[in-house]
Amino acid sequence: KKQYRIAVIPGDGIGKEVMPEGLRVLEAAAKKHGVAVHFDHFDFSSWDYYEKHGQMMPDDWKEKIGKHDAIYFRAVGWPAKIPDHVSLWGSLIKFRREFDQYVNLRPVRLMPGVPSPLANRKPGDIDFWVVRENTEGEYSSVGGRMFPDTDREFVTQQTVMTRTGVDRILKFAFELAQSRPKKHLTSATKSNGISITMPYWDERVEAMAKKFPGVKWDKYHIDILTANFVLHPDWFDVVVGSNLFGDILSDLGPACTGTIGIAPSGNINPEGDFPSVFEPVHGSAPDIAGQGIANPIGMIWSGAMMFEHLGEKEAGKSIFDAIERTLAERTLRTKDLGGNADTTACGKAVAEMV
Amino acid sequence: KKQYRIAVIPGDGIGKEVMPEGLRVLEAAAKKHGVAVHFDHFDFSSWDYYEKHGQMMPDDWKEKIGKHDAIYFRAVGWPAKIPDHVSLWGSLIKFRREFDQYVNLRPVRLMPGVPSPLANRKPGDIDFWVVRENTEGEYSSVGGRMFPDTDREFVTQQTVMTRTGVDRILKFAFELAQSRPKKHLTSATKSNGISITMPYWDERVEAMAKKFPGVKWDKYHIDILTANFVLHPDWFDVVVGSNLFGDILSDLGPACTGTIGIAPSGNINPEGDFPSVFEPVHGSAPDIAGQGIANPIGMIWSGAMMFEHLGEKEAGKSIFDAIERTLAERTLRTKDLGGNADTTACGKAVAEMV
Ligand SMILES: CC(C)[C@H](C(=O)O)[C@@H](O)C(=O)O
Ligand SMILES: CC(C)[C@H](C(=O)O)[C@@H](O)C(=O)O
Repeated sequence: KKQYRIAVIPGDGIGKEVMPEGLRVLEAAAKKHGVAVHFDHFDFSSWDYYEKHGQMMPDDWKEKIGKHDAIYFRAVGWPAKIPDHVSLWGSLIKFRREFDQYVNLRPVRLMPGVPSPLANRKPGDIDFWVVRENTEGEYSSVGGRMFPDTDREFVTQQTVMTRTGVDRILKFAFELAQSRPKKHLTSATKSNGISITMPYWDERVEAMAKKFPGVKWDKYHIDILTANFVLHPDWFDVVVGSNLFGDILSDLGPACTGTIGIAPSGNINPEGDFPSVFEPVHGSAPDIAGQGIANPIGMIWSGAMMFEHLGEKEAGKSIFDAIERTLAERTLRTKDLGGNADTTACGKAVAEMV
Repeated sequence: KKQYRIAVIPGDGIGKEVMPEGLRVLEAAAKKHGVAVHFDHFDFSSWDYYEKHGQMMPDDWKEKIGKHDAIYFRAVGWPAKIPDHVSLWGSLIKFRREFDQYVNLRPVRLMPGVPSPLANRKPGDIDFWVVRENTEGEYSSVGGRMFPDTDREFVTQQTVMTRTGVDRILKFAFELAQSRPKKHLTSATKSNGISITMPYWDERVEAMAKKFPGVKWDKYHIDILTANFVLHPDWFDVVVGSNLFGDILSDLGPACTGTIGIAPSGNINPEGDFPSVFEPVHGSAPDIAGQGIANPIGMIWSGAMMFEHLGEKEAGKSIFDAIERTLAERTLRTKDLGGNADTTACGKAVAEMV
């Protein structure tokens, strides 16, 4: 029987507080479902490491974590101490690019017991996935500045879409849609304004759709699509977007379900050539770090996604169900959800429900 | 006393139905406040014109409307009949570029009597402006495709930000913030992901902020900013963004106030070298065209903005107040707002309130 090796990287801020709760719940689920899992802990990709070594990660980071089955990670970033382009481009975005994690997958789901900012929406009304392209598009490194410090100064940055990059994310999204009861895919575009790359995206969506005749699909310009997330969140099943559009939609979606603090995400390399990274959507929250009040559910839910990705569906589902029951019972909620449980108490509650 | 000359372009679809109501209300307000105004009607920038002439506008369109004091316009576009790049880039976007309407200005305001999709928000809670850069940024025409129809195929499109383009929109936004009681400006960025153009935007915001010491300012990445529109719409006063970010925020904002069908916009050339265009945010709505049920309030509200822009503050305000009262009284509402008044009845009701 296979033993999974997971690289554990708690990162900064509240990461050190929520990570133990994530591990506690993973261990409980592993025990219950007979999953053999081994955790290797790493201190890099954090402010502490950067302070000692002047860089975010050791030179041999790829050898250190590149052979693991998955990486269990907390979002880095501490803008007051390290510039974003050093911390994020030196870890999070490096992982995505160098481990070819071309899918960023995030659930948007209205959970029982979580107050939604939208009027009159009940659990069950909102339940979809955002599939985001995670390696190219608007996050390119091609561009520059000319005539600096003069009136003629200008900067440019290219959006880059490759046939390979676009087709593989669309394929993943159509496959996901096909596996779901509604079999419905929505593509985010802006081809009426972004006149070169976005028409190309549309063209590839149309070509891919031909291979999935069982999937109903539609497209919306990103402006009206964000409006429809608020007005008609029940319209969506799987929503696919470019790096930037997916980024926006996967913050807005969770906000509409009131769960931005508890939302999980997977940075996935579907072929398994490299490890995938699972991490909560929220940041390192320096303002509440050290107080033991952070909500560990984003970390725990990311663990459920990790188990599902590894093929341990039952262990993953038992974690997800435990989260849902803990939230529904409205006991042991952390401060952000209106309770006064601390991080550890909340983590223990979920672990006991598993 | 000056007589204003307004170019009237009703465009497509429901445009022909709501335009007469806009004019009816403008005339009522002009009469009441002694504003002298003359309307010149044009049939171009429409499907009908395109069908006859094979182009959206006559070659001498600039001579025909370039000397007017303002243009009262309905959004064009009828994707089933004319491709967007022909209809939109051949009129709407042409106006913005060639008349240098570098400000796209849109109010986000929770109106009495309009159901909001957000829970527990009352009129007064949401009241801000989106200021969008309207000529450059992500809507560029620089880019292309290489290796077509092969696996190596790729497309690129450049985002372009000029010192002139960025500074003038920021100046407009800071001035607007300074004129308001809260004196608060929020800048939309994404400098942690869009690593060349967005840090430049941030840099120019910081430089401009020094010239407006009385304005409090902050910035959010666009992903969390869209989330905050839903979670904390009361945080905002003036929000400034690039062409794309402003486009997104000025659809999402009105959606949060339930008013996407009644929201107005101005495409403004602040120096007055060229006419500004005032138009509702909504599209030509081919699906309901010809039925006489479209809501004319977006058209009417755009007229109020036009009068304010021309310096006729009182006439503009009397239209705005009439809209507010008509909505609050919940009589004579069109179908989209849950009533059964037709377009004309609604327009007449507002005109009578002026
Ligand atoms: C129709 C389209 C090109 C346009 C834009 O994106 O600018 C519209 O969405 C708008 O906001 O006026
Ligand atoms: C931190 C930032 C670079 C990142 C992104 O934009 O990809 C984050 O917002 C995310 O969604 O993971």
